[in-house]
Amino acid sequence: MKALEEKIIAEGKVCPGHILKVGSFLNQRLDTDFLFEMGREIYRLFENENVTKIVTVEASGIAIAMAAAFYFHVPAVFAKKGKSSNVTGDVYVSNVHSYTYNKDFNVIIAKEYVSSDDRVLIVDDFLATGEAVTGLADIVKQAGATLVGVCAAIEKGFQKGGDRLREKGIRVESLAIIEEMDDESIRFRT
Amino acid sequence: MKALEEKIIAEGKVCPGHILKVGSFLNQRLDTDFLFEMGREIYRLFENENVTKIVTVEASGIAIAMAAAFYFHVPAVFAKKGKSSNVTGDVYVSNVHSYTYNKDFNVIIAKEYVSSDDRVLIVDDFLATGEAVTGLADIVKQAGATLVGVCAAIEKGFQKGGDRLREKGIRVESLAIIEEMDDESIRFRT
Repeated sequence: MKALEEKIIAEGKVCPGHILKVGSFLNQRLDTDFLFEMGREIYRLFENENVTKIVTVEASGIAIAMAAAFYFHVPAVFAKKGKSSNVTGDVYVSNVHSYTYNKDFNVIIAKEYVSSDDRVLIVDDFLATGEAVTGLADIVKQAGATLVGVCAAIEKGFQKGGDRLREKGIRVESLAIIEEMDDESIRFRT
Repeated sequence: MKALEEKIIAEGKVCPGHILKVGSFLNQRLDTDFLFEMGREIYRLFENENVTKIVTVEASGIAIAMAAAFYFHVPAVFAKKGKSSNVTGDVYVSNVHSYTYNKDFNVIIAKEYVSSDDRVLIVDDFLATGEAVTGLADIVKQAGATLVGVCAAIEKGFQKGGDRLREKGIRVESLAIIEEMDDESIRFRT
């Protein structure tokens, strides 16, 4: 998505540890109109897949998931991280390692919110090592639902998570794929 | 908002500790079309206030904030809770006590995302004791911005947070205000 690549160049900040900060439009400050443009693009990519549910993980995945869900007119479900006293009863749980925070956490979704009838599209803001998405895909599998694909706003191609998922036969689309980045420049996969 | 009251009656579950679970449409599972109906109602209530920014707090406020922001065509900014290694540099911080989790946490917004020119509408899923909103209002004040009002999807009127904010002269609108609730019934403020 050309407009997203331009936005990353204009507003993104590359920080140590392979961190790309896009707090000005995708995290913390949400550039509403632009997020809905991204949501429409996600819909365009997956509109023929009969998606019944969008699944993401809190907190920064919620905005882009909502923007996509708006066009699909399907519910969005966000996994909670760690333990939460507000999620009780029967839940699906999968363990995830966060490289950003260098610790393990659980992604948790109440069983009642994903069923075996669902055709699930996983949406997230970033796809890097792919651990979070792998955890969500595991929950989709536990539920007996069908995973139709994964769509990240920004994929850090050099961290290989997206390609590992593709090698497993999962359809992974990302609106922008960063092949290389440093303080000086950001190069996208073409 | 009559449709919301009906939805709460149909799908809400009252749990011990004054907790109302609405995970089927407002938390965890997001009923997309219904959330955008709520967003449109928030716009109707505040459309003449020249809102320039919607402010909420992660995670469960993000969905309703996005739905409202869609109609205002303004950015939404969500405060992060606690410490976050992804928020660095100059930040506004306010301390909040969570009665749900019985602990203190900080709400944090990077200074660059709220400015003194902003006319801020605070949006959240729940308004109960009002601690979270008070923390966000404090950040709006620290930024020198104008707080045009507060809009919660569901206000627990019996916990008095909304009324305390009203007594301070803040315009507080809630799409549904629960006056009393127990296992048997939920009564709304009329």
